[in-house]
Amino acid sequence: MPLYSESVTKLIEKFSSLPGVGKKSAQRVAFHLLGLSEAEVEDFAATMVEAKKTLCFCKICQNMSDKEICDICANPARDASVICVVEDPRDVVSIERSLEFHGRYHVLHGVISPSKNVRPDDIRLKELVTRIDGSVKEVIVATNLTVEGETTAMYIAKLLAPLGVTVSRIAHGLPVGGDIVYADEITLARAISGRTKIS
Amino acid sequence: MPLYSESVTKLIEKFSSLPGVGKKSAQRVAFHLLGLSEAEVEDFAATMVEAKKTLCFCKICQNMSDKEICDICANPARDASVICVVEDPRDVVSIERSLEFHGRYHVLHGVISPSKNVRPDDIRLKELVTRIDGSVKEVIVATNLTVEGETTAMYIAKLLAPLGVTVSRIAHGLPVGGDIVYADEITLARAISGRTKIS
Repeated sequence: MPLYSESVTKLIEKFSSLPGVGKKSAQRVAFHLLGLSEAEVEDFAATMVEAKKTLCFCKICQNMSDKEICDICANPARDASVICVVEDPRDVVSIERSLEFHGRYHVLHGVISPSKNVRPDDIRLKELVTRIDGSVKEVIVATNLTVEGETTAMYIAKLLAPLGVTVSRIAHGLPVGGDIVYADEITLARAISGRTKIS
Repeated sequence: MPLYSESVTKLIEKFSSLPGVGKKSAQRVAFHLLGLSEAEVEDFAATMVEAKKTLCFCKICQNMSDKEICDICANPARDASVICVVEDPRDVVSIERSLEFHGRYHVLHGVISPSKNVRPDDIRLKELVTRIDGSVKEVIVATNLTVEGETTAMYIAKLLAPLGVTVSRIAHGLPVGGDIVYADEITLARAISGRTKIS
């Protein structure tokens, strides 16, 4: 005998399929949803479908957008001579929050990963290469400090080498406010090898 | 300038509104969803609406069901003389898993809570009272061991006293396999005050 009705069981399964949502959380979320009004549930469902339907990618930077050219690429105040390459649209949001970067972005939508069978052609590298013309001076690779992220950074450096553009990597080291005692050895190694001169 | 398109921002907000889903998780879940095919997203959305639309409550035990009378109440093999009162439909699932209870349930859909302005009339107590006829011998109150759960248990005991039915409370004490050293004082106090004779 099933413990929940078929439709409730199916709803719990759907939520369980989301990343980071376990069986208990899925139950909790499903029951919360069932406690909302029918109009609220319909609005939630419509939001999902609407977001998926209107989703498109900026023709220039490949970031998620609801326009052909995203707001950042369309903004003439942004420096077109610097491109920051990231793995994921969320990285753009994080970097934007830092208020430190005023150039444009390029979203790869993934990283090269032989173990997950993600090849260079599977991420948006071709689109990056076509963007490199005389106006672009520097490409900052801001992929994560993982094997895949590093591999992708190296691949991009080699790919763009013939095009006469400077390829740089964001700095890795101790986080601001981080205590050396508590830093892991890999971060510490990066902090030492990436040391800069005090002028 | 919004960092995500309007529809994506709205989707993230919807997921953030769910219990136990923080801002970062909501982003992660929303992006996962946007990575699915349009058909999959539509199926997810339809499941939500469908579950809400078909949701109804068993006329007898008030548990969530997709039928007028739920499978447990409709099962003649279940002992109709014992009713286990729980706060939430999920509690029914947990108790069913224990395979220890063979009677029927009554789901209150909440507990009396003056601080949250939940009065006895706001939970399904009237429906419990109407179920107490000559055939019901015992009501086991299995609300949680919280102030509200205890208050509700006491209230039920008083409410049913004139009806000549035995009202009992599930036992609280050390969990099976639990170590006394690590037990919190309240559990330990309950374990001592609720001690049973070794026959």
